[in-house]
Amino acid sequence: MSSKGRQLNLNLFIYPGGHHEAGWRYKDSSPERILDIKYYQALAQRAEAAKFDALFFADGPALTENIRYASRPRLEPLTWISAMAAVTERIGFIATASTTYNQPYNFARFFASIDHLSNGRAGWNIVTTGDAGAAQNFGLDQHPTHADRYDRAGEFVDVVTKLWDSWEDDALVGDRQSGIFADDQKIHPINHIGKYHRVRGPLTLPRSPQGRPVYVQAGSSEDGKSFASRYAEAIFTAHQTIANAQEFYSDIKARVKAVGRNPDQVKVLPGISPFIGSTEAEAKALYDEFNELIQPEYSLDQLRRLLGIDLSGHDLDGPFPRELIRIEGEVGVSSRFHVVLDIVDREKPTIRQLLHRLAGARGHWVEKGTPEQIADKIQLWFENGAADGFNIMPPYLTGGFDIFVDEVVPILRKRGLFRLDYEGTTLREHFGLDRPESQYSLAQSAIA
Amino acid sequence: MSSKGRQLNLNLFIYPGGHHEAGWRYKDSSPERILDIKYYQALAQRAEAAKFDALFFADGPALTENIRYASRPRLEPLTWISAMAAVTERIGFIATASTTYNQPYNFARFFASIDHLSNGRAGWNIVTTGDAGAAQNFGLDQHPTHADRYDRAGEFVDVVTKLWDSWEDDALVGDRQSGIFADDQKIHPINHIGKYHRVRGPLTLPRSPQGRPVYVQAGSSEDGKSFASRYAEAIFTAHQTIANAQEFYSDIKARVKAVGRNPDQVKVLPGISPFIGSTEAEAKALYDEFNELIQPEYSLDQLRRLLGIDLSGHDLDGPFPRELIRIEGEVGVSSRFHVVLDIVDREKPTIRQLLHRLAGARGHWVEKGTPEQIADKIQLWFENGAADGFNIMPPYLTGGFDIFVDEVVPILRKRGLFRLDYEGTTLREHFGLDRPESQYSLAQSAIA
Repeated sequence: MSSKGRQLNLNLFIYPGGHHEAGWRYKDSSPERILDIKYYQALAQRAEAAKFDALFFADGPALTENIRYASRPRLEPLTWISAMAAVTERIGFIATASTTYNQPYNFARFFASIDHLSNGRAGWNIVTTGDAGAAQNFGLDQHPTHADRYDRAGEFVDVVTKLWDSWEDDALVGDRQSGIFADDQKIHPINHIGKYHRVRGPLTLPRSPQGRPVYVQAGSSEDGKSFASRYAEAIFTAHQTIANAQEFYSDIKARVKAVGRNPDQVKVLPGISPFIGSTEAEAKALYDEFNELIQPEYSLDQLRRLLGIDLSGHDLDGPFPRELIRIEGEVGVSSRFHVVLDIVDREKPTIRQLLHRLAGARGHWVEKGTPEQIADKIQLWFENGAADGFNIMPPYLTGGFDIFVDEVVPILRKRGLFRLDYEGTTLREHFGLDRPESQYSLAQSAIA
Repeated sequence: MSSKGRQLNLNLFIYPGGHHEAGWRYKDSSPERILDIKYYQALAQRAEAAKFDALFFADGPALTENIRYASRPRLEPLTWISAMAAVTERIGFIATASTTYNQPYNFARFFASIDHLSNGRAGWNIVTTGDAGAAQNFGLDQHPTHADRYDRAGEFVDVVTKLWDSWEDDALVGDRQSGIFADDQKIHPINHIGKYHRVRGPLTLPRSPQGRPVYVQAGSSEDGKSFASRYAEAIFTAHQTIANAQEFYSDIKARVKAVGRNPDQVKVLPGISPFIGSTEAEAKALYDEFNELIQPEYSLDQLRRLLGIDLSGHDLDGPFPRELIRIEGEVGVSSRFHVVLDIVDREKPTIRQLLHRLAGARGHWVEKGTPEQIADKIQLWFENGAADGFNIMPPYLTGGFDIFVDEVVPILRKRGLFRLDYEGTTLREHFGLDRPESQYSLAQSAIA
């Protein structure tokens, strides 16, 4: 019961219709409220009451999914989390945003503002955008390659980091008597001239409570892991088995160490989508009920995106045609591609079985069981070098989250694995991450 | 007392330190709270209780002002208003954003999201960004010229309008039974290919409650007026005299009519910065007290920006050197430039007197008087073809707004000039503006 042992970090990952692709069709879901801010504010408050670390939001700057069958429209994450931060006090908010399809100066302003208005509860899930369709919304002839996107991402993060550091922490003075509002010696132009960006700075607003948002990263490709080792403070990752998760965990911690960073300052948080029943049979029946709601046309379209192969016209109950998958090319580089390939090779599924496997949470770990069984698995991963915590991905909302909070969280608490209350106020504090000093203050101290 | 007569529209224009450039130094201001969201949320709630139409926020994507003396850092407006919309129900929020320094696809997502999460209370103050320093934050060698910026602005507004229209109003279906989430026949790629932008679309989220945010515009140059006549639904403008305001008002309404739009669908809202005292002498003493707090170094720097001339070294109590002003060039094109020139020509001030005149609200109308006198002036302008309402620009916060609400608003209500309560829920409804149909629905109806 001690709160002193190593503790889980738990995020609620919000997909508006739930993480199961047919979640919005489930009888207890609320598709009519997918754009209703009050619905999400209530969810945020519920997650805060449960002492979760953060809410996590996906994003992509294009509408390219098969929207006919999918509950995919969502509010824009930065405005969305601003409206949720306004009605909460402690829980963090992690928003996904692209390094390929944003302008660093505007972007840095948005996130600094959110970190201010939330009093230090902002996290940035750094993505390069895998969806090639985005290019055409931004005037590009073609989507940059995977390697190029990661190259851009490194420069983008460097630029916005400089902008977030451009006001030293004590630059704001506000002294009525002298009339000095800000100490302009402590506000620095960044004068960045790089391969992709030229940005003078400084930022329009002072350094934020956390210094910078928490840097979260979600790609597990080679480029992704290399990027994560340099920048990430939390890593969202997809694994189907504890063995894979352990391999990833030890690999990433070693890479972090190799570049001279402290592995404890990088939290590894796999996704888990739990189907919970009061018996194991009930949980499995629930899972089957969701799969009955799947629409194969949509699922095949998703599979085409993940693997680059079109299986429409094939017998869904025939064996999955492994030989059609090509590892070369842009699709084959992504980390999710390899997760799917691993399922295919281990489980030898029919096409329909594979569609069901992926419908749960797009390649993330789907677990079916009683609250006790779910808690056991979480504990197993947590205590055996596979995870520092989890992104909880409810198959539907809000019930799929409610049952986790009501039934699983108390068990984790009883076992001393999850906090009884917040100990800090910022997301960095929840995650046990240091607050970085401004590189300009550091430069000053070095001179002094 | 009837609420049926023509009614004033009143916005509270928020400058973090107040509109007087030394407002932050005034004893009752709160410079230590300029980044505190709770401070602004309380202001928004107070303005809502007073039944104001909207809060209005300036913005610029560069820190180029003389930050040493000026209370100019502010939250980024789109995230800022999202956090205020979250704690209010009826009041609108107008955020300034640049057509020169934004990407239309991202921008359209932000504003659509805000209109959703506020249930139809978003307004966009469309600016081209006058501050040349912004260019260097966005990798440009030089700031586009005034004419070029307005050319870009027209295309930018066209693109984002198409994006906001790209989902017809009834495109979202969410039918559990059939499994149809959206009617993809009613979601349209925009396929925009223009001089400055190429954007495929459609937007990532459904059409918002107001269809589009209210289009507000604030430039009064020739280019600005031409732009306003095509796009604006509300115009924020700066006039020092009723004669000038009347001339502008009738000119803009005629231009709107000339392009085939309804002049009643364009609200003209000058700025007014009121110094209020229980006697006229008290109001003047208050104004003097603020001017005592001015720092000439900062004021001269502001003047240099407005007029393009550097007067440091000159005797502040000598006559203003009118002969130094050049009308040619980029600076001379701006509407504010002409407001200042008009003051100089009418009032023949000393340099110090001009600095004081401008310190009040950067060229906006500063009025000193009792609540009754302020109400009289507002009524005079409103009933004599000079204004449809006003942007109230308190010299300091929050007291400078409180006294307006407590002392002036009740007089306006007694005279039947301002609402006792909201009659609608959206900003369009407050302003009496029609909700536009999607151009794609209209195209469909035309075919049918």
